[in-house]
Amino acid sequence: MAIESSSNPDHSGRRLRLGMVGGGQGAFIGAVHRIAARLDDRYQLVAGALSSQAARAHASAEELGIAPERSYDDFATMASAESERADGIDVVAIVTPNHLHYAAARAFLEAGIHVICDKPLTTNLAQARELAQLAGDNKLLFAVTYNYSGYPMIRQARELASGGALGSLRVVQVEYPQDWLTTAAENTGLKQAEWRTDPERAGSGGCIGDIGTHAYHLACYVSGLQLESLCAELSTFVDGRQLDDNAQIMLRFAGGARGMLWASQVAPGNENGLRLRVYGSEGGIEWKQENPNQLWHTSFAQPTRLITRSGSGASDGANRLSRIPPGHPEGYLEGFANIYSEVADALQSIIRGTALDAAVDFPTVEDGVRGVEFIEAAVESSTAGAKWVSL
Amino acid sequence: MAIESSSNPDHSGRRLRLGMVGGGQGAFIGAVHRIAARLDDRYQLVAGALSSQAARAHASAEELGIAPERSYDDFATMASAESERADGIDVVAIVTPNHLHYAAARAFLEAGIHVICDKPLTTNLAQARELAQLAGDNKLLFAVTYNYSGYPMIRQARELASGGALGSLRVVQVEYPQDWLTTAAENTGLKQAEWRTDPERAGSGGCIGDIGTHAYHLACYVSGLQLESLCAELSTFVDGRQLDDNAQIMLRFAGGARGMLWASQVAPGNENGLRLRVYGSEGGIEWKQENPNQLWHTSFAQPTRLITRSGSGASDGANRLSRIPPGHPEGYLEGFANIYSEVADALQSIIRGTALDAAVDFPTVEDGVRGVEFIEAAVESSTAGAKWVSL
Amino acid sequence: MAIESSSNPDHSGRRLRLGMVGGGQGAFIGAVHRIAARLDDRYQLVAGALSSQAARAHASAEELGIAPERSYDDFATMASAESERADGIDVVAIVTPNHLHYAAARAFLEAGIHVICDKPLTTNLAQARELAQLAGDNKLLFAVTYNYSGYPMIRQARELASGGALGSLRVVQVEYPQDWLTTAAENTGLKQAEWRTDPERAGSGGCIGDIGTHAYHLACYVSGLQLESLCAELSTFVDGRQLDDNAQIMLRFAGGARGMLWASQVAPGNENGLRLRVYGSEGGIEWKQENPNQLWHTSFAQPTRLITRSGSGASDGANRLSRIPPGHPEGYLEGFANIYSEVADALQSIIRGTALDAAVDFPTVEDGVRGVEFIEAAVESSTAGAKWVSL
Amino acid sequence: MAIESSSNPDHSGRRLRLGMVGGGQGAFIGAVHRIAARLDDRYQLVAGALSSQAARAHASAEELGIAPERSYDDFATMASAESERADGIDVVAIVTPNHLHYAAARAFLEAGIHVICDKPLTTNLAQARELAQLAGDNKLLFAVTYNYSGYPMIRQARELASGGALGSLRVVQVEYPQDWLTTAAENTGLKQAEWRTDPERAGSGGCIGDIGTHAYHLACYVSGLQLESLCAELSTFVDGRQLDDNAQIMLRFAGGARGMLWASQVAPGNENGLRLRVYGSEGGIEWKQENPNQLWHTSFAQPTRLITRSGSGASDGANRLSRIPPGHPEGYLEGFANIYSEVADALQSIIRGTALDAAVDFPTVEDGVRGVEFIEAAVESSTAGAKWVSL
Repeated sequence: MAIESSSNPDHSGRRLRLGMVGGGQGAFIGAVHRIAARLDDRYQLVAGALSSQAARAHASAEELGIAPERSYDDFATMASAESERADGIDVVAIVTPNHLHYAAARAFLEAGIHVICDKPLTTNLAQARELAQLAGDNKLLFAVTYNYSGYPMIRQARELASGGALGSLRVVQVEYPQDWLTTAAENTGLKQAEWRTDPERAGSGGCIGDIGTHAYHLACYVSGLQLESLCAELSTFVDGRQLDDNAQIMLRFAGGARGMLWASQVAPGNENGLRLRVYGSEGGIEWKQENPNQLWHTSFAQPTRLITRSGSGASDGANRLSRIPPGHPEGYLEGFANIYSEVADALQSIIRGTALDAAVDFPTVEDGVRGVEFIEAAVESSTAGAKWVSL
Repeated sequence: MAIESSSNPDHSGRRLRLGMVGGGQGAFIGAVHRIAARLDDRYQLVAGALSSQAARAHASAEELGIAPERSYDDFATMASAESERADGIDVVAIVTPNHLHYAAARAFLEAGIHVICDKPLTTNLAQARELAQLAGDNKLLFAVTYNYSGYPMIRQARELASGGALGSLRVVQVEYPQDWLTTAAENTGLKQAEWRTDPERAGSGGCIGDIGTHAYHLACYVSGLQLESLCAELSTFVDGRQLDDNAQIMLRFAGGARGMLWASQVAPGNENGLRLRVYGSEGGIEWKQENPNQLWHTSFAQPTRLITRSGSGASDGANRLSRIPPGHPEGYLEGFANIYSEVADALQSIIRGTALDAAVDFPTVEDGVRGVEFIEAAVESSTAGAKWVSL
Repeated sequence: MAIESSSNPDHSGRRLRLGMVGGGQGAFIGAVHRIAARLDDRYQLVAGALSSQAARAHASAEELGIAPERSYDDFATMASAESERADGIDVVAIVTPNHLHYAAARAFLEAGIHVICDKPLTTNLAQARELAQLAGDNKLLFAVTYNYSGYPMIRQARELASGGALGSLRVVQVEYPQDWLTTAAENTGLKQAEWRTDPERAGSGGCIGDIGTHAYHLACYVSGLQLESLCAELSTFVDGRQLDDNAQIMLRFAGGARGMLWASQVAPGNENGLRLRVYGSEGGIEWKQENPNQLWHTSFAQPTRLITRSGSGASDGANRLSRIPPGHPEGYLEGFANIYSEVADALQSIIRGTALDAAVDFPTVEDGVRGVEFIEAAVESSTAGAKWVSL
Repeated sequence: MAIESSSNPDHSGRRLRLGMVGGGQGAFIGAVHRIAARLDDRYQLVAGALSSQAARAHASAEELGIAPERSYDDFATMASAESERADGIDVVAIVTPNHLHYAAARAFLEAGIHVICDKPLTTNLAQARELAQLAGDNKLLFAVTYNYSGYPMIRQARELASGGALGSLRVVQVEYPQDWLTTAAENTGLKQAEWRTDPERAGSGGCIGDIGTHAYHLACYVSGLQLESLCAELSTFVDGRQLDDNAQIMLRFAGGARGMLWASQVAPGNENGLRLRVYGSEGGIEWKQENPNQLWHTSFAQPTRLITRSGSGASDGANRLSRIPPGHPEGYLEGFANIYSEVADALQSIIRGTALDAAVDFPTVEDGVRGVEFIEAAVESSTAGAKWVSL
């Protein structure tokens, strides 16, 4: 083992009480949220409406050590009951399929409970805006788990790109290829494939909603640019599939930068190939999710530098989210946990009435709204034959 | 040293007599053509009109060992004189800036001399088609140095992608970023930058003509697909520059495959980052020019395989163009030389009246025509605000 | 997000009660053990003797939510008190500097408490053997955190190398370069550097004990080979340093395989570069800790295959230790957590009196003994001028 | 295409007259030497004793365009005849199996003809020293083709490592794994395997002589260090093989640096994996032959920098040996050609009586002597059971 531990100490504040909607047995992303919440020991999972099937909900709750009386049959009951308990949950994590986000989030916001919600925020823009309005009106925290923004090297990329080190930004290239839907996996009983390719549950976007929205968020988060218009070609290559499985989009950003976004779930050989490149008048950066501890930075006419998590060139903003020394890889779960830990920082500020560390920078309901806006614009553009659409 | 030498033996046929137009002192690509011609010892450079400035032309010729009487002041004189010599050149290499290709190529074709011409073929489509017609009418060989098609692993990629191993093709992603025009290098006396950014000499395409056309050719060469329409956003990021320095294009191929092409000369940290990925219903491939001896191949639901030049998984078609054992890298000059050597094969077939090896597969004037068509369509699309244009 | 979650479900068994010796404020590896214990929610930290300084011990305990009456001033008191509680700890994690491992481990073993101990096990071989004897006599579980064996791809490497897929093993190359001791960091107040370079606390090995022993364990774990003899050159390059900071060792394994081991803490540009290669008569494998989700496997005369965690070529034995889909990197903490979770499996088998899953395969006190034996042999060899020493 | 051509212009001096001994049909390295000589157009191949079998010699000569009267039956006749011609060869390239180097080189040196000889120089040290003496006495140039020293990035590595930028050197790790002799290829009719595993023709070293000597030369060339002693374990893993196929060696350099060298021809998955790392008190470098255009350089406590051939951080000394812009890979043949071109520089200096450019830095007969000394010491050490042997 190598160097002195510095960042992410164990925290002495009380553990936050966390509830969960969705994420019962057989789900995937719920388990990720739970690990993320647990990693830095800032949360206790104490309540849940873990499944729309009561038996599964309660069995899941028991497995997770949730007291029977706090395992609810539905989120409405849960929101109401928890809001009345003295030891009610501080925050709820909503990890259902997309179409259920809206009603669940609304129920908790109306009950005065902070929300962490998976992406995309909702299946239409009106609902997304309503949630944003409601959170604002009720002065509640609302985080959306665009988890890739939690990687330390993404924080440093954001500092470089949006902070001026690359000069005036010109080109943003972002891509997110996967291959797991190359064949009709939704017909083989794979639950993750079923709902993601079903417009009833996923919304109007398939690949664009599942991963394209991650790529879009990351590009904007790092560059600090605002999208003005897009031209999207959404394709469905697998016979019988109802939603897009490949998305190719041209991007025009305010200020003149130009970009391309490619997301695919039918690109054999790609597992989770999210990759971002940003170029400006004075430099460029490149980052790949599959090796997230590295960030490549070039100042024009200088050799490219390899900046590593916790390494010699890492910034304070990146180090703040690192747990272990350089060369000891942190991965997806740690990045996801960083979002949870920043939400914990924010919640504890609220609870204590103290000022929030300015460095805390997790994605919020506003990012969620923009993500849904992006999906709708892409679908509109593509449906019109890949015409330019303004946002 | 490792294994038995097999391919690319020294050839016993007489060396072909090569002439050159352009490529005098201070030029770049001319020297590359000369090395490519020399590498496999199939050519002798015996005549030239190496510069439009007579003094430079003759000094260059002397340096290269060309006899004074075969150093010409202009290509027209050269074409005429060489066509009358018993030992006249077999073939001419045209390596001038783009705007001179047409007239020079025409002169030699009319003189009955075979042509090797740099890309893009001409600065407008009408001229390109005229050259194709003329070559056809006169039954003359006309190669265009889309040199990246000469890499052995590209030959294997072509076998896999166009040969069915990837299944039905769906997605083609090609990119070609560079960074050498990030600043206004054309104002600093850099000749290579000057003419490439000057519409008088480069034609209507800047980056799209200089390198976008390479990317386009490679995508088509490997996939075997035909482009049906495109939607192009050409940008000029450097103040005062007259031509595009960044090109982002969406591609629709016959048969339903979809693609994206990105070419840039303002992407700091990229030297010569040509990279191609092709995905089909049964597999995918990836290749990067900067490490050209490697080809990644994935059969869907199998681990990705690393195929290396001359290595265990290399095909006969790839090995045919290899000189040395695996792990001993061959590079850009060797790939370029492969085009010259295949042209030599073809010329010797013509000279001897023998059948040409079916494996010979260099780019021809037809590829050149398609390249100019692509540039024109991209410029048209972009000028119209990035609208779809059919080819 | 991609595929169905499968492995590493949340577990329904009660959380195991964990105690910790060492690991108070300012320590490094203690925090890693705690995260590892927490990640899969199999443990609760309920007791500790977290520092030899009482004030620091108790402050640390409070921070970690340990009840004041279970924060002990010393490990002896803790062992005794916990062994008498009905809800006493199931297992203790010993994460002190090396010289304290022996006495602490002995105290808990004598109190009938299972032990997880950091490496190297002790500072001399006699003590190591004594602990092994004691654990055996008392039928107690004793794990040693050679944590790199917890990576899923290392499990697959072990299957391939020790399972015959590589044929008869011939060559084992293992290396572990770091750079954090390139200068005299121990003189700058860096605690991690201080004790690791102090023979009183680290034992007779510096670099060889800190990381060389990891490399040695990994080589044996994966290959299944037993070391017969070694020839070691231990060097101290930094002026005034008391222990070795660079170790170069030749290895002779039973059965005829030959190996080399290099460990260094003075190799600028290396963060935590543990890398293992094993070659046999029929194939080879390569793995690098800094990108632990990848394993390269070559069957002789076939293209090299890239096997990824949870990916197409991953084995059941590897998948058992994976939490999330391929392409979502798991890292150092997850690998470490796998050791803790396997220990939890074993402890729950003991508690329940059920048979242990045969796949559970964490390093034990026997590995710890061999590690100390290795360090002593290396020091002996080097002291004698790099002579061969039998084990 | 990218930037202005600068280095390696076509040269105006007359082409040097080259003879060759060995390298007839079926040979491998002879063809490499010929391409290397041809690449920069500095040589003409005009004479040869290309095979010990006369028919093959003359057929080979005809193929290569050598006049019949200058195709000789044996090297002795050739040396004598060429030394008497007014247009006799300037230099001879000796590319036979190892055991013939000595007699051939001696014949040409005695005839007053400069020599380029493949490595290892001879099959015993006495002969090597005799050649060095003879070359010195006769004031003849004698190059030995340790070709890897011809890579531009190796020149920059040498500047950095031996020039002080890395501080005081501490550790040198060099390795050269291949896999082509994993099975008994010498029994399958593969000529390259036959003579390299035959002590009569290869000398006392197998793998150590074929590739270990390359690794040794490169380590010394780059570091500027002198080897003081070594401890070698040479193994023969393939049944019936007469020479070593795997070599593991510990190195002690003058001044206190320590190193390891591993060479193997039985490591499946390795093609030509020569790799060098050098570490000092202030920095480190890493270079891999299979991607020779990249050099990694770390100044301690700074991010690692990627220096590329002809790129932003490339030195004048590296650029001197580059032909084409960055990102256009140059490979093995270009590196080999650099040795030939530097020899041409030296020969033309001699012919013209001008001073030689101080940057010219090809390996000479002295390097050849040291290489043979290294092989002999390694064999001696290994035979004694891997004992330390001084050089």
